[in-house]
Amino acid sequence: MKLDTAPPRGMKDVLPPEVELRDRASATILATYKRYGFRRIETPALENLKLLLGSGGGENEKLIYKILKRGAKLDTATMHGEEDLADLGLRFDLTVPLARYYAHNRATLPDPFKAIQIGPVWRAERPQKGRFRQFTQCDIDVLGVASEIAEVELILATSAALIALGLERPRIRVNDRRILSAMATHCGVDAARHGEFFITLDKLDKIGREGVERELREAGYDDGAIGKLFDLALSAEDGPADARLERLARLVPAAADAADGLRTIARAVARDAGDDTTLQFDPSLVRGMGYYTGPIFEALYGAGTSAIAGGGRYDRMVGRLLGHDVPACGFSIGFERVVSILEEREGSPGAERDRIAFLFDRDDPLSDVIASASRLRQGERVVSLTLKRKNLAKQLDDLAGEGFGSYAVLGPGPGAPEIKPLARRASSGDRADG
Amino acid sequence: MKLDTAPPRGMKDVLPPEVELRDRASATILATYKRYGFRRIETPALENLKLLLGSGGGENEKLIYKILKRGAKLDTATMHGEEDLADLGLRFDLTVPLARYYAHNRATLPDPFKAIQIGPVWRAERPQKGRFRQFTQCDIDVLGVASEIAEVELILATSAALIALGLERPRIRVNDRRILSAMATHCGVDAARHGEFFITLDKLDKIGREGVERELREAGYDDGAIGKLFDLALSAEDGPADARLERLARLVPAAADAADGLRTIARAVARDAGDDTTLQFDPSLVRGMGYYTGPIFEALYGAGTSAIAGGGRYDRMVGRLLGHDVPACGFSIGFERVVSILEEREGSPGAERDRIAFLFDRDDPLSDVIASASRLRQGERVVSLTLKRKNLAKQLDDLAGEGFGSYAVLGPGPGAPEIKPLARRASSGDRADG
Repeated sequence: MKLDTAPPRGMKDVLPPEVELRDRASATILATYKRYGFRRIETPALENLKLLLGSGGGENEKLIYKILKRGAKLDTATMHGEEDLADLGLRFDLTVPLARYYAHNRATLPDPFKAIQIGPVWRAERPQKGRFRQFTQCDIDVLGVASEIAEVELILATSAALIALGLERPRIRVNDRRILSAMATHCGVDAARHGEFFITLDKLDKIGREGVERELREAGYDDGAIGKLFDLALSAEDGPADARLERLARLVPAAADAADGLRTIARAVARDAGDDTTLQFDPSLVRGMGYYTGPIFEALYGAGTSAIAGGGRYDRMVGRLLGHDVPACGFSIGFERVVSILEEREGSPGAERDRIAFLFDRDDPLSDVIASASRLRQGERVVSLTLKRKNLAKQLDDLAGEGFGSYAVLGPGPGAPEIKPLARRASSGDRADG
Repeated sequence: MKLDTAPPRGMKDVLPPEVELRDRASATILATYKRYGFRRIETPALENLKLLLGSGGGENEKLIYKILKRGAKLDTATMHGEEDLADLGLRFDLTVPLARYYAHNRATLPDPFKAIQIGPVWRAERPQKGRFRQFTQCDIDVLGVASEIAEVELILATSAALIALGLERPRIRVNDRRILSAMATHCGVDAARHGEFFITLDKLDKIGREGVERELREAGYDDGAIGKLFDLALSAEDGPADARLERLARLVPAAADAADGLRTIARAVARDAGDDTTLQFDPSLVRGMGYYTGPIFEALYGAGTSAIAGGGRYDRMVGRLLGHDVPACGFSIGFERVVSILEEREGSPGAERDRIAFLFDRDDPLSDVIASASRLRQGERVVSLTLKRKNLAKQLDDLAGEGFGSYAVLGPGPGAPEIKPLARRASSGDRADG
């Protein structure tokens, strides 16, 4: 009986060229973050379900892959629901596990603690193009710093990482959850309905101003409230952050402290990053996660309107675990999105001169083959043993296509074999961008 | 309400110094394998349960973490058992997913295909010291090569990787599943009982010759069979592989082909690796996995008697997926064991001169702090912003303990701040081996 060989629905196998691109990208990000004093940590892929549920992960909590309890039997007399069947789940992000890690290990961690995490997360989302049920996130977080210096470091380090990847001139959009709350109150929205109000506002990119207006009207808001919101949140989007924040603080005094914080962040980023990074204040920016408590931010690249990185301050998450709050703030690069931008740009990688295919015949003594290959394999050279085929010209062409830049053939004498360059012939099988 | 902050039972949080050691080790292994022409691939952590079950994974198949089906309700009318509750599982090794990956992607993969995999696997084992339920494996595999050249490359590359890690002079023990079968038949064991016979033989390390003898007697084997076995499998263990294999082939003619293959492997490895690697023939070596079909091998280090790497040939696994067999062979480094050997040896890492703690006061203008830190952050330098504490001497000592080799303080002028070395004072809090 043959079995289905596809990976599980919504998940993917990664072929060698993409793995190599991913490895280069994560090495670049990691090296940049390390220079800012961050250190990498690891947590298990599985967490106790009690930790994951009610963590402020919003919709993502509904997408958790749960692990069947060991030896769980279908005992209908005692079982009442899923809680009897599962007590572990796969993590849906890296922030909730980080908070647990910090709470558990804080005695041995530096204070403040600056963490790098890069690893897979799992969400049982409806499969769709470009979205996977297992995907990699790449986060930095600062725990133990209440001042805006944490946000500034996160923004500068993330910008520097994106620039090091070749994603130049990233745009950073910032807002603050406290500004959103103050705006909602200013517009006459009940505190209890703030969440639903923000969800509508967050759709501005997708459904436009008219769509937001329609949804708010349907939710029972009058022209006065809607007019106030649009005046605050949708005024001249590309003005300098400083002037816009000053105006907002004047119109909505309850937002003044948060606006002041964002101005401090904006000035420090502008002074350090200069023209390399643009920082924009966007009062309609919401970010989905329920756990944010202060500044929120995201990074955009080129003409793209969807974020390639997102983050914010979540000062109350550790408190849920520790009994007292610890200031915390993070920025997460959407690694899959970054990789697909890099893939589009790079096309297929060229052959490398130092990748050598070492050809031998079936009749060659194995010891001689191995010994000759070892002599060739010096320094950074890649030497891969390859059985000679009948159609050598075709084989050499295939090898060039696999990224080999040179080849060598086992000779009759004891000396090192001669290394010859491999040139790839243009063929109809080549990718157009190859 | 406070939540439990420990990681799930049997799993662990990895602290920054261990992550850094792990990263260095995996980079070393990866670089070595690449020079032998292997390329890294990735598969999802989850696989369809149908693939994982009946894959020849032996006892490990009983330890699979299964994923609760989405929306599975406890419908007692239609449910009969676990198969109604779960259809995905976490991988328990990297070999079964590799066979699926190869079968699924072979049209775009080179032939032969030489894969590196490094990643976590999960087994719901009874928790015990040094054994984790999530742990990392590091495998190389050759698919599409029937000749012993595959085994030789795997053994040489794995030895080279271990040596590059500083684990010098690894010992490789080899045997062949066909030799085990021929020996069992020679001793009068029914083909149907070979598996159980091998399981007993495999315990030789743990329960000794007497224990094996007792178990075989209890299983109904007589003195004649046991005497034959001990004569074959337990004779002078440290003789040269070549002579021992020749003797075995003389005594058990049905083992001659397999013995010839091992002699070819032994000669090629000896010629290439010289004194760096010792290869021993051990006719009592079994290796647990049911999927092996030919040569099997493991690596030992120093005085250790448990393997730090293991592997073998599994020519029939891909056939289960593809309908026709593809020769395949792999060698897997037990990454956790290697890391714990390296940890014991290295002790705590020293401070690095190029890790600079940049101290500032709460009153310093944020923009000045950031700008000065940026000026310092050149080349490979790590510059981490650190709020000055009241007890500076104590703080500097803590920073040295965290691996900072230097510090700098924000000065009054516009120039770059002076970098001063940090010396760690001996204190009672230090580790004895620090």
